Amino acid sequence: MTRDNIRQLALDAKVRAGLSWPQVGEAIGRSPVYAAYLVYGVGQATAEEAAGLGKALALPAEAVAVLQQVPHRTPAQPWPPTDPFIYRLYEAVMLYGPAFKDVAHEIFGDGIMSAIDMAVDIRKVEDPPGVPRMVLALNGKWLTYKKF
Amino acid sequence: MTRDNIRQLALDAKVRAGLSWPQVGEAIGRSPVYAAYLVYGVGQATAEEAAGLGKALALPAEAVAVLQQVPHRTPAQPWPPTDPFIYRLYEAVMLYGPAFKDVAHEIFGDGIMSAIDMAVDIRKVEDPPGVPRMVLALNGKWLTYKKF
Amino acid sequence: MTRDNIRQLALDAKVRAGLSWPQVGEAIGRSPVYAAYLVYGVGQATAEEAAGLGKALALPAEAVAVLQQVPHRTPAQPWPPTDPFIYRLYEAVMLYGPAFKDVAHEIFGDGIMSAIDMAVDIRKVEDPPGVPRMVLALNGKWLTYKKF
Amino acid sequence: MTRDNIRQLALDAKVRAGLSWPQVGEAIGRSPVYAAYLVYGVGQATAEEAAGLGKALALPAEAVAVLQQVPHRTPAQPWPPTDPFIYRLYEAVMLYGPAFKDVAHEIFGDGIMSAIDMAVDIRKVEDPPGVPRMVLALNGKWLTYKKF
Amino acid sequence: MTRDNIRQLALDAKVRAGLSWPQVGEAIGRSPVYAAYLVYGVGQATAEEAAGLGKALALPAEAVAVLQQVPHRTPAQPWPPTDPFIYRLYEAVMLYGPAFKDVAHEIFGDGIMSAIDMAVDIRKVEDPPGVPRMVLALNGKWLTYKKF
Amino acid sequence: MTRDNIRQLALDAKVRAGLSWPQVGEAIGRSPVYAAYLVYGVGQATAEEAAGLGKALALPAEAVAVLQQVPHRTPAQPWPPTDPFIYRLYEAVMLYGPAFKDVAHEIFGDGIMSAIDMAVDIRKVEDPPGVPRMVLALNGKWLTYKKF
Amino acid sequence: MTRDNIRQLALDAKVRAGLSWPQVGEAIGRSPVYAAYLVYGVGQATAEEAAGLGKALALPAEAVAVLQQVPHRTPAQPWPPTDPFIYRLYEAVMLYGPAFKDVAHEIFGDGIMSAIDMAVDIRKVEDPPGVPRMVLALNGKWLTYKKF
Amino acid sequence: MTRDNIRQLALDAKVRAGLSWPQVGEAIGRSPVYAAYLVYGVGQATAEEAAGLGKALALPAEAVAVLQQVPHRTPAQPWPPTDPFIYRLYEAVMLYGPAFKDVAHEIFGDGIMSAIDMAVDIRKVEDPPGVPRMVLALNGKWLTYKKF
Amino acid sequence: MTRDNIRQLALDAKVRAGLSWPQVGEAIGRSPVYAAYLVYGVGQATAEEAAGLGKALALPAEAVAVLQQVPHRTPAQPWPPTDPFIYRLYEAVMLYGPAFKDVAHEIFGDGIMSAIDMAVDIRKVEDPPGVPRMVLALNGKWLTYKKF
Amino acid sequence: MTRDNIRQLALDAKVRAGLSWPQVGEAIGRSPVYAAYLVYGVGQATAEEAAGLGKALALPAEAVAVLQQVPHRTPAQPWPPTDPFIYRLYEAVMLYGPAFKDVAHEIFGDGIMSAIDMAVDIRKVEDPPGVPRMVLALNGKWLTYKKF
Repeated sequence: MTRDNIRQLALDAKVRAGLSWPQVGEAIGRSPVYAAYLVYGVGQATAEEAAGLGKALALPAEAVAVLQQVPHRTPAQPWPPTDPFIYRLYEAVMLYGPAFKDVAHEIFGDGIMSAIDMAVDIRKVEDPPGVPRMVLALNGKWLTYKKF
Repeated sequence: MTRDNIRQLALDAKVRAGLSWPQVGEAIGRSPVYAAYLVYGVGQATAEEAAGLGKALALPAEAVAVLQQVPHRTPAQPWPPTDPFIYRLYEAVMLYGPAFKDVAHEIFGDGIMSAIDMAVDIRKVEDPPGVPRMVLALNGKWLTYKKF
Repeated sequence: MTRDNIRQLALDAKVRAGLSWPQVGEAIGRSPVYAAYLVYGVGQATAEEAAGLGKALALPAEAVAVLQQVPHRTPAQPWPPTDPFIYRLYEAVMLYGPAFKDVAHEIFGDGIMSAIDMAVDIRKVEDPPGVPRMVLALNGKWLTYKKF
Repeated sequence: MTRDNIRQLALDAKVRAGLSWPQVGEAIGRSPVYAAYLVYGVGQATAEEAAGLGKALALPAEAVAVLQQVPHRTPAQPWPPTDPFIYRLYEAVMLYGPAFKDVAHEIFGDGIMSAIDMAVDIRKVEDPPGVPRMVLALNGKWLTYKKF
Repeated sequence: MTRDNIRQLALDAKVRAGLSWPQVGEAIGRSPVYAAYLVYGVGQATAEEAAGLGKALALPAEAVAVLQQVPHRTPAQPWPPTDPFIYRLYEAVMLYGPAFKDVAHEIFGDGIMSAIDMAVDIRKVEDPPGVPRMVLALNGKWLTYKKF
Repeated sequence: MTRDNIRQLALDAKVRAGLSWPQVGEAIGRSPVYAAYLVYGVGQATAEEAAGLGKALALPAEAVAVLQQVPHRTPAQPWPPTDPFIYRLYEAVMLYGPAFKDVAHEIFGDGIMSAIDMAVDIRKVEDPPGVPRMVLALNGKWLTYKKF
Repeated sequence: MTRDNIRQLALDAKVRAGLSWPQVGEAIGRSPVYAAYLVYGVGQATAEEAAGLGKALALPAEAVAVLQQVPHRTPAQPWPPTDPFIYRLYEAVMLYGPAFKDVAHEIFGDGIMSAIDMAVDIRKVEDPPGVPRMVLALNGKWLTYKKF
Repeated sequence: MTRDNIRQLALDAKVRAGLSWPQVGEAIGRSPVYAAYLVYGVGQATAEEAAGLGKALALPAEAVAVLQQVPHRTPAQPWPPTDPFIYRLYEAVMLYGPAFKDVAHEIFGDGIMSAIDMAVDIRKVEDPPGVPRMVLALNGKWLTYKKF
Repeated sequence: MTRDNIRQLALDAKVRAGLSWPQVGEAIGRSPVYAAYLVYGVGQATAEEAAGLGKALALPAEAVAVLQQVPHRTPAQPWPPTDPFIYRLYEAVMLYGPAFKDVAHEIFGDGIMSAIDMAVDIRKVEDPPGVPRMVLALNGKWLTYKKF
Repeated sequence: MTRDNIRQLALDAKVRAGLSWPQVGEAIGRSPVYAAYLVYGVGQATAEEAAGLGKALALPAEAVAVLQQVPHRTPAQPWPPTDPFIYRLYEAVMLYGPAFKDVAHEIFGDGIMSAIDMAVDIRKVEDPPGVPRMVLALNGKWLTYKKF
């Protein structure tokens, strides 16, 4: 049973059960985005998380076991991205990345925002009222280059 | 005088003048990130913004004129990105993009977060105290696919 | 049941039923091109559209359900395109895109023609009489870059 | 004197002279888009067109001579396109090309819309009033595959 | 039944029946090369051609129907080509293409040799006697760029 | 003095002298296409050919010497080709190459048409009268795979 | 039955029968390397060779028939090569190819070593005694560029 | 003074002095191919070799110094190779590499032919008399994978 | 039975048996990393090693036989690597490789660290205590370029 | 003054001064590898380090200032690597990376070895005596994926 099989099983079950990502997240005590990570196969579940997903999404025991293994992270999409939702993020990194880097280095000195110790939040705001906007916030630990 | 020439001139002047990005932003009434966009050549300055940058960074008149033209947006970096700061963002889009897309579509329905009508904020938080983290927030208008 | 399965089912049914794209479009109250989008898997059908396609093309219930989900948009073709019909469009964007951009920016200022809020029309004209020409018209909302 | 040199010279002269693309087009009896083709180096000017451009844009004699040579057409941009204006067109061809192809073949039978015998028009419409949209229309001769 | 299935069926049948390409061509009133186009899936057969192929090569009715549809033209080979026969043609276009272009433009002015309205002939000559040479002749309509 | 320098010098001189490729070919006792090969840097001139080109095109002595060296053959164009004239040839090899290969092997057995011992001819025909067509004929020695 | 199927069948049979490549070569009157070509699917067997392979390796009749067809030569490996044995050869061509070319042209004049009329030998030498070295010798007909 | 400068200087000097590669090799006590390595910048000269080259080819002192540094080995050609001489070698590795690997492993067991401890010889043979063939022999130490 | 099948079988068995890599290594008298090489299909097992793996991991006889064949080494991952663990190593080679090369050449002279006669060790250290660090040590024979 | 200029200046000075990397490292109180990072442009020097390098290598004041800026890290080599020294490291990551990952995850759980907080050591050992081997040790902090 591969990560791809499990993803398909879990997404189908989520639709059948009428669950939202916040509800899946609550079932395992994590945020909606982290719950999606586990389902999409880019996170390693603890035994509790795997059991919680198994129960909420009626997954078979083999899937529950596989969810607890370390995944080999590969993109669940063609790359470069062809879907417009994802391409817009890719474009932002490509065009504005050097500006982000310069502003960040002024604040923090040389280093990086970790993509490992990083939390992500997605939410809806209205600005002006009635006009929806999406806010994607990446929150990562700052790591400084080692001297040696 | 190309966008590359102007970027180099402006960055050198910023160092000589000891200005920070927030200060450059204030000089033109914009955020630090947007000010960096103009300097890096991925935004079109209004006459006021161009004049403000020209004054703050002692740019020649020709540079002030070029800043007001529509740029042909090209990345000021190799691509795929080789710099670790930018690669970590690229990795997040590559690995987690499908999860972001799924969570967002549940909130908004089919569509995209615009990368054109999009504001960006970079800031430092400490969590726990004394441990710095970077928060990068993208805030874009939600666009719905047209039926026709 | 994947988007690829549904496309194949629907195209076969369309041939068997002797339906044209305008007729498929009429069955769901949309243009021929939009109807093709749904069949090719690059649009999300409303419940009514999915039901209309299901009826016109005798699709199974599972297909009708999948048509209502948000698609992960991927090209139904090799890329770069090898088919001459599509390559000619690709060539036009590659060679003439910078001229289009310059003419458009003179009219609209900096920004883009949205590919999300965009309608498309394909029609036949004769010029001179007896000599067919194809007209492909893309009609997208103009989006202006945000200042922040 | 290369095509790149001439483009830069001509674009600078256009700004200095305060000419619009429709005005440049009028100076040579062509549409704004075709005038841009010649300036961007992807068209071969007739002697009259070259003379008209030379006069309107104060080009040196050598440039007027080069404009009359057959160009080796190469894109004046990185490829795949990084500029958002052009990427949106590229995305439309990539994602919707197969649907366009299917609708067109139903109308015309097997063949292609020529990218050689093709005229292009760019214009602004408002729909609803006050909301600008761009319409890009490609109008090409239909070519049928030869039997032999 | 895909184009790939049909190709394999037809090529196997051709071997079993001991038919040559000229014989297959005669069966449908076309040249050997055009007959091969239909079998390889890069041409659209008329009803008569499809029936002729079906009869000569004992194809099932479904294959005869598919042969009459417009193909999505994709290369039946890896690309860039790895087979030495095809690589040599690719090399000729890559290295000598600019010289061909220059000689052709001197004869015809700016434009292209159509690859749509194009006939192809392959034949054997001996020069000197006993030493075989292959002649590949492409014969395409000359198309001139449109002014507009 | 590089091959690129010599090409530019020679093409400029050809325009100034009002010479055609057939005339350049006659000056060295070769066909127009072969003369173009030497100018474009993809052939090695004999001493007589180099002298003939030097005289016809007023080349400096250093260029005459370089023309007699073995060239490192590199394409004088971007690759894959962006120019529509050359792309159409590339497309023919990509889409129709496997059919050409099959027809040729039926005639010759396994082997290749040499791209080294290969002559090329480009000419204009009218069919029907008044409608120009270009004929490109490649004529190469057939080489058979060695058994060992 | 594809070339890949036959290769797998033949290699398995070779192991079971305990045959070496020299023994397979002897069975068909060819060198070990040429015998491997036929098994790997990059050569066309004569009727005798195919029968010899069929007998030595207990291949089914269908495989014996397919071995006599002209192969479409494709690499039986990823490319660029990832296996260290093959990469080292690739590296030699990449880094030392221009030096080989220069030395060869000094000996032969402009032209190529044919990869079609080419025999290959692999053998073991010891130098100094007890230290094994591999010698790979490519022996190809020299082809001179045609003048025309 | 870069490796590219030195190569150009040395090749020009070799032509002026009328030296052959065997003569250059003799001047430094090495084979013709190794002498070409040093000139092409893919070998590190000893002090004696550098002095020998400097004398034979009248190189300036700075070049003699640079020749003694370890080179960063980069190909002096586009890659994949476009020159037909080199492409034929590349093709042999691509198509026949897996057969070479299998034959070699049967002789030597698992391992590689070193491309570091490797000598190369290029020579002319006639077979049959009057028909030139090139023999390229690579002679490398066999390295066995380490167990640990 | 392919290398991929064996890897999956062996990894599943390892989980079921609750074995660690050091334990698998002990079962065959090799290090943990080398044991993993054999399981991942990038090493050739001796008869003893294959038997040891077969016993420890309950592999079928066919798998034990395949493990003793020379593998065609291909990466068991997409490339460039998408998994963050592996990308960080790739990044180190890309960014710091030239510095490693320079330092190493100063110590050893021109040559390479063999990737064939190379042992690898992975271990955990704590520095400062309680803070885990990973040490990856590559230990390869130094090979010097051959003069000839 | 770019990073490339500074690297060239510093490497030339290092040769002239007869300094080794350990000596350069001592001059700034860092390891030889870290000293090379600064010279190769992939590290940010402190004021003290920059001053130390400036003194040891006689760099101009502008270079000393640039060394203290955050670098945009780009590889000082073609990529994929063509130099054999670096390719061998690349090959190790490509072929053995998944085995390294599996062994490491067994020790540490899911996470990565940081390439930011990472020290590197290169040294020579002899095993057996008189046979040199290179040991490259990467020592990076272990980072665990964040739950959120």
